[in-house]
Amino acid sequence: MSASRYTYLGPEGTFTEAALRTLPEAATRELVPMVSVPTALDAVRGGEAAAALVPIENSVEGGVTATLDELATGEPLMIYREVLLDIAFALLVRPGTALGDIKTVTGHPVAQPQVRNWLAANLPEAVWESAASNADGARLVQEGRYDAAFAGEFAAPTYGLQPLVTDIHDARTAQTRFVLVGRPARPAARSGADRTSLVIWLGDDHPGALLELLQEFAARGVNMMRIESRPTGEGIGRYCFSVDCEGHITDRRVGEALMGLKRICPKVRFLGSYPRAGVDASDPAVRGELRPGTSDSEFEAAADWLARCQDGRG
Amino acid sequence: MSASRYTYLGPEGTFTEAALRTLPEAATRELVPMVSVPTALDAVRGGEAAAALVPIENSVEGGVTATLDELATGEPLMIYREVLLDIAFALLVRPGTALGDIKTVTGHPVAQPQVRNWLAANLPEAVWESAASNADGARLVQEGRYDAAFAGEFAAPTYGLQPLVTDIHDARTAQTRFVLVGRPARPAARSGADRTSLVIWLGDDHPGALLELLQEFAARGVNMMRIESRPTGEGIGRYCFSVDCEGHITDRRVGEALMGLKRICPKVRFLGSYPRAGVDASDPAVRGELRPGTSDSEFEAAADWLARCQDGRG
Amino acid sequence: MSASRYTYLGPEGTFTEAALRTLPEAATRELVPMVSVPTALDAVRGGEAAAALVPIENSVEGGVTATLDELATGEPLMIYREVLLDIAFALLVRPGTALGDIKTVTGHPVAQPQVRNWLAANLPEAVWESAASNADGARLVQEGRYDAAFAGEFAAPTYGLQPLVTDIHDARTAQTRFVLVGRPARPAARSGADRTSLVIWLGDDHPGALLELLQEFAARGVNMMRIESRPTGEGIGRYCFSVDCEGHITDRRVGEALMGLKRICPKVRFLGSYPRAGVDASDPAVRGELRPGTSDSEFEAAADWLARCQDGRG
Amino acid sequence: MSASRYTYLGPEGTFTEAALRTLPEAATRELVPMVSVPTALDAVRGGEAAAALVPIENSVEGGVTATLDELATGEPLMIYREVLLDIAFALLVRPGTALGDIKTVTGHPVAQPQVRNWLAANLPEAVWESAASNADGARLVQEGRYDAAFAGEFAAPTYGLQPLVTDIHDARTAQTRFVLVGRPARPAARSGADRTSLVIWLGDDHPGALLELLQEFAARGVNMMRIESRPTGEGIGRYCFSVDCEGHITDRRVGEALMGLKRICPKVRFLGSYPRAGVDASDPAVRGELRPGTSDSEFEAAADWLARCQDGRG
Repeated sequence: MSASRYTYLGPEGTFTEAALRTLPEAATRELVPMVSVPTALDAVRGGEAAAALVPIENSVEGGVTATLDELATGEPLMIYREVLLDIAFALLVRPGTALGDIKTVTGHPVAQPQVRNWLAANLPEAVWESAASNADGARLVQEGRYDAAFAGEFAAPTYGLQPLVTDIHDARTAQTRFVLVGRPARPAARSGADRTSLVIWLGDDHPGALLELLQEFAARGVNMMRIESRPTGEGIGRYCFSVDCEGHITDRRVGEALMGLKRICPKVRFLGSYPRAGVDASDPAVRGELRPGTSDSEFEAAADWLARCQDGRG
Repeated sequence: MSASRYTYLGPEGTFTEAALRTLPEAATRELVPMVSVPTALDAVRGGEAAAALVPIENSVEGGVTATLDELATGEPLMIYREVLLDIAFALLVRPGTALGDIKTVTGHPVAQPQVRNWLAANLPEAVWESAASNADGARLVQEGRYDAAFAGEFAAPTYGLQPLVTDIHDARTAQTRFVLVGRPARPAARSGADRTSLVIWLGDDHPGALLELLQEFAARGVNMMRIESRPTGEGIGRYCFSVDCEGHITDRRVGEALMGLKRICPKVRFLGSYPRAGVDASDPAVRGELRPGTSDSEFEAAADWLARCQDGRG
Repeated sequence: MSASRYTYLGPEGTFTEAALRTLPEAATRELVPMVSVPTALDAVRGGEAAAALVPIENSVEGGVTATLDELATGEPLMIYREVLLDIAFALLVRPGTALGDIKTVTGHPVAQPQVRNWLAANLPEAVWESAASNADGARLVQEGRYDAAFAGEFAAPTYGLQPLVTDIHDARTAQTRFVLVGRPARPAARSGADRTSLVIWLGDDHPGALLELLQEFAARGVNMMRIESRPTGEGIGRYCFSVDCEGHITDRRVGEALMGLKRICPKVRFLGSYPRAGVDASDPAVRGELRPGTSDSEFEAAADWLARCQDGRG
Repeated sequence: MSASRYTYLGPEGTFTEAALRTLPEAATRELVPMVSVPTALDAVRGGEAAAALVPIENSVEGGVTATLDELATGEPLMIYREVLLDIAFALLVRPGTALGDIKTVTGHPVAQPQVRNWLAANLPEAVWESAASNADGARLVQEGRYDAAFAGEFAAPTYGLQPLVTDIHDARTAQTRFVLVGRPARPAARSGADRTSLVIWLGDDHPGALLELLQEFAARGVNMMRIESRPTGEGIGRYCFSVDCEGHITDRRVGEALMGLKRICPKVRFLGSYPRAGVDASDPAVRGELRPGTSDSEFEAAADWLARCQDGRG
């Protein structure tokens, strides 16, 4: 029964699985690893799964382009949750392998920049070859094709490996953000500390179009949290923009900004409003970020005033 | 009965009276000249008159500060009509006076810059002294205090004078704009070529406040037609702004801009939306001025889209 | 000898004369009253006077349009100093006149809004008639044409009058700003708390032109202190802008903003950079107003960096 | 001798090699394939090579993050040339292999989205596994590990393979842009149709910082051609921006924009100004893109005017 099934970017033992297991509802769902982001999302589109968890952004490697591009195109999907996970690698080896024995290492291409410095310092002679995923690298070590794999420590037992070194990461705060994606429905309820995700196509490529896009947000005091250009496939120099802004689509300032975008851009895709992970909505500092004049109550007072003016009771 | 009475900036024979008589309804109203703009407007405030016609802007002398300041302060009033009048002066003299006899001339201070060049060329020795109005200057000539007065040619018979020279004006296109002011009620109906008038007070005087004000208009593609700073009386460097923008308060783009102003400015006074004089609302060039994405239908389409997104039908 | 002669807006006994006498150099100059702002300035243009002091802005009545328009047109002039003067009126009468005797009052039209409330409260029946200047009003009282004149208390002895009531003013902080105007030469030295005055004509009247003008200032962190629209004489809706910004033309940020204006506007007239009156240049609060990234040293560091990049030493 | 040596992203047979061979000077250089973008660039940093050719942007897959990040960090490098190459894949197989024999395919991860549709239509059952490069995939086919590899047709002979299908690409206009990178020196001469590359770090992460960055360009009429956010490694939500704008660092408008960025951003890295590939600098359409007021001659006229004003000759 699909409502009880969640797909995720597999195989078993990836950071994505670890992220998925932080969700309380994961305990009662059938969790199905998929070989790629597109297949994980297509299972949702096709109704075989209720939702999919996929990585969208890494603090070292940046946006996960497969996810960004899948969400931007094809049948629409929506984001309902986000999960933040600290990323630290373990060097997984077959039992008995010592550091000096390692000639070849593998891992997901995304892992490489995060372990680059550690490799240069500790295994300068080792040859790196990319694997399709960190867990896949672990499997290839199990099969003997490589001597060691970088993966999450939690992947070791699945592949009969041992963590030789743990907590390897170059950047102090390496994190990956994952999103739980489903078919379009009513957005998650407003928490007070929300994120709204969009994909925006600019028009006839006039030079100031990006500036105009940002001004639609700025004019309503809506803060941009993330912006990534992605090629539209129509040639070098043609981009669409994957954008996150703070706030919820039911916040008046966010709604007005979205309508402004919709009017000036040939295409806008709403990808969801959902609670920001790692942020406490009851923290006054989070609520206090609003620019004066952009709260819902100020929007409503201004709308009342406008109605009074239109009626001659200004 | 006050509903049938209109006041205007008198005395009889001023350009204001001439402007008032261009309104069809003037034929059926009692037209009462008042000694000043404040008294003309106070008669409306007090209910003794239904409306007042007063000058607000002259193409040579600029804004009529008495009108701007009266509309900005005191009990609120609203503008329902505007009238544009070409301004040309006649030199009025007592019968028998020749150009060579003229040693002293008078007229309203506003007239002076418009006849300055003519005076320098034709009566370089004549001494100018200001009168309270052009018509008042005519009266003072009638009484013999001055030799000649600049006024509208139509004022001559009222004061038993003769127009010695007519069609005097320095700037080729001298015009005055007058407004018909009443107590606040529902604005004039939208004509498709409208003007909306406001007075806007800026906040705690931070340097970028004026720029922010203009951006509220620009963000919605609403064109500014006129902006005048007026002192608030709180000291050098403290201003409020008398602003006209194109469009009607019931235009969606104008309404959103006004709400934006209301949210960021400590005080906004709506002075009315009314048809632009001298402009044909059915002219495609007038209608075609809209920036893409700012028509009512585009606003409505964007609002529909937002509602669909909020409902999960994006 | 013209170098020793200063003209001012007369006649003797005006606030302008009082402002002029606050300048130390006034003690060693011949001070010549003129009948109007244009004649005072034309004496400078013609070389009969080294400089002229004229009012430019009043905290109650706003810009002095005769001065603004004279500086905007005709042979160029430049501002070298400004003087701020508190404005309080005295009611001047012939010796022996009591308040109850006063049926007619006079004064400059600019004085009227400043004494309006006082008149309504104290002489509600008195008829106001405008005079060419406050001092001229005093002269007309001396001649017996009016019963009382509003003027500066200092004007009383000149006209053989007595101040019946003193310190009359509606707005608590009524002030007039005067400027000392000469022929164009090197601007006044930078004081650290300066004002730069400009007249700016916008181009083909496209709707966003005023916004673009303001953005040239904003882009360089230059604060606008005053902006007044003035008609160009080419018809209703055609304006030029009289603008003051903070800073000196030799400040790098001001220079870059001025060059930006010069490039986008069909005409810019530089009217001078001069010390702000009533401001202490050594006050850290005044110096601290600069936006980060806009000091001269930051401009110079950025220029050095650019040169290094252009030379391949980035 | 290093001056005669160019490195490139190898191995032999990659699109990068094909792009490099389009440069006339390549005929007289020793061309050395390197295993990765970092090693290709480090050879330049270390002086073992005069320059390196690396891919920077693909019209389907977007920015090449290894290149963007290497140019943003470490010892500074500079871009002197760009090359645009149309990307079409061939399916390379060992002689004798038929389409029906293919169970496993490989190629660079960047190739996958470009051949995804072709695979789904023609080899729906084939399993994809990523290789370190397209050429590396060819080598693995040669070694028998996979049945087929996607790579440039030109790579076939190097690895003893045959192109079974050619001209495979999903997006009609698939192109890759490559850059020739050397140690910092004087930029390439201005061609009249140039591109300037920068990396820009924003300050204390205030919400409007990106808008301010774009406004420094917009204020000088400098068009943005490309913008990519890249994580700084300091955590989710912390980005720097890889930016290309049109124009050359010796264009006055570009220089002023760069100085503006330098003043407001904590760090700006200039990566070079160089001729745009695929654009004819003598084409009036290219030269005509300039916004009025932003040509060098207008900048110089404005600078002359400013100097005259500062000298009192305004």
